[in-house]
Amino acid sequence: MNINQLGEFGLIAEIKSAFDKVPDGIRGIGDDCAIIPQTTGRDTLVSTDMLIEGSHFLMEDADPWQLGWKSAAVNVSDIAAMGGKPIATFLSIALPKGLSVKWIRAFMEGYGKITELYGIPLLGGDTTSSPDRLCINVAVLGEAASGTAKLRSTAKPGDLICVTGTLGDSAAGLQAILRNAQRDSMVKTLIERHYLPHPRVAEGLALAQCDGVHAMMDISDGIGSDLRHILEASGTDDEALGARIELGALPLSAETKTFCSRHGLDPYELATSGGEDYELLFTVEPSAEASLNVEHTVIGRIVPAQRTIEWIGSDKDFIGFRHF
Amino acid sequence: MNINQLGEFGLIAEIKSAFDKVPDGIRGIGDDCAIIPQTTGRDTLVSTDMLIEGSHFLMEDADPWQLGWKSAAVNVSDIAAMGGKPIATFLSIALPKGLSVKWIRAFMEGYGKITELYGIPLLGGDTTSSPDRLCINVAVLGEAASGTAKLRSTAKPGDLICVTGTLGDSAAGLQAILRNAQRDSMVKTLIERHYLPHPRVAEGLALAQCDGVHAMMDISDGIGSDLRHILEASGTDDEALGARIELGALPLSAETKTFCSRHGLDPYELATSGGEDYELLFTVEPSAEASLNVEHTVIGRIVPAQRTIEWIGSDKDFIGFRHF
Repeated sequence: MNINQLGEFGLIAEIKSAFDKVPDGIRGIGDDCAIIPQTTGRDTLVSTDMLIEGSHFLMEDADPWQLGWKSAAVNVSDIAAMGGKPIATFLSIALPKGLSVKWIRAFMEGYGKITELYGIPLLGGDTTSSPDRLCINVAVLGEAASGTAKLRSTAKPGDLICVTGTLGDSAAGLQAILRNAQRDSMVKTLIERHYLPHPRVAEGLALAQCDGVHAMMDISDGIGSDLRHILEASGTDDEALGARIELGALPLSAETKTFCSRHGLDPYELATSGGEDYELLFTVEPSAEASLNVEHTVIGRIVPAQRTIEWIGSDKDFIGFRHF
Repeated sequence: MNINQLGEFGLIAEIKSAFDKVPDGIRGIGDDCAIIPQTTGRDTLVSTDMLIEGSHFLMEDADPWQLGWKSAAVNVSDIAAMGGKPIATFLSIALPKGLSVKWIRAFMEGYGKITELYGIPLLGGDTTSSPDRLCINVAVLGEAASGTAKLRSTAKPGDLICVTGTLGDSAAGLQAILRNAQRDSMVKTLIERHYLPHPRVAEGLALAQCDGVHAMMDISDGIGSDLRHILEASGTDDEALGARIELGALPLSAETKTFCSRHGLDPYELATSGGEDYELLFTVEPSAEASLNVEHTVIGRIVPAQRTIEWIGSDKDFIGFRHF
């Protein structure tokens, strides 16, 4: 059965039935808008991301379950990036004619799995038809105690630069897919890191509680690009900030190291410019770093400089992933 | 210059500079999320809509300024549909390679014009590249006093069915475009109604104040489809609701009547099934109707029936616009 046989309202009914666990007091799918009660002393956070077939994924390669997971994950990660609590997601999806109902069911299952795991209901969206390519947009609503959300613009000179988890695994996974590498358990782990990122919501919430944490964001394009956003947003024209990164300190998984050495890849390139890590990148004042109750790695320091990154341990510059 | 020469960050800077009027206390573009302070006694409303080149518009026909306007308008209309106040919009856009910067500037100007007119800042979004087709998603955030948002599920037997404005103009405008009709002032008016809908925000807010107004939604697919949503959501299985619509009572503009008579079109077909009117459709208890301070037309009545619409004045059934 394809989606044209199911029809628009059949499709909405299908999606609705899969996402019927809406918290009390909230109204989800069924009206022109979702309705979410507002609470005192909280800020609303909103983020949105678009994925296009042919730019972000290829239909012949994409597993619909994994794509559903990732579509939600990358947005939830934006809420985690500011130390917020995700509240709800909204899914817009343009479906090419002839797409099978099986495909869309698997997509919704993956989407449902991660949103269930993180306790974030799907409260609305839009389903429409596309002449050819699948197009997905997820908007996510979150909240944070007033004024506690961590920004990109608040790094200070002398701050330690830290990241959660390991870097480059997702990029190594992508390389494994592109090179059609044999899927041993190491390669499977890397590919899973690429397709099934786990946004750092709990870590973000914990870091938001700590005044010593200054700037924060998530790593979607690689620190070579993302750290530059912090440098550009922080400091002033008179007192611009730069960063010194110790490449040797970058947290690399055993899988990424082995994969890179087997395939002649530079692990620092993947760790700084591969992107899609969905780990947190944050700056913290040195005195507060030891008491952080979130697992992290110190990779460098914010220094006075003209918004440049000095890479200690290589002559290369690492610029991150470019979308255009 | 095309967008590849401008680059992603050039493009974001361009969009950001065009949308720098953000209300005090709100943080817009620049972090992973927008931050909007929450207020007591209010509900947050969220809606999102996707427009795909080839399904919703054709690049060779679409004026970018008008498309920018319409992309925001259809979402703002969803907030109006529930009697809410629009607060902010979020724009995701996937741009085909080689699209001119002139095109995207005109698009953002049209988008900026309507959001400025309605006082709704652009607070975030996503820009990405598309292999070929332009894809647009707008998410809009609004608010309403707690519990005052009007739903689809609250129509009552005996309610009068009302609409704001006139119906079918947008559909007539689309027919004029498809038939390449000579653009006299009448045709221009209809085409403008198609491309530049004015969401009924003030009317929605006023109707939300009135307890006698029961169910409400906006008309995007034509009342033949949209009214059925109210009938399906309202009533119970034991006491299902239907509607009787007096076709002769439908508010038709002089332009639509003349255009239909010239081109052999059924104006009732356009008014019930053409869609994209972005007027409000609501039900109100008869005793409250006379005192409504919003211009409207009574077109029928909610009656006990098996969720069907009886069209008085024609043997046809009018089913509304179908997306799939």
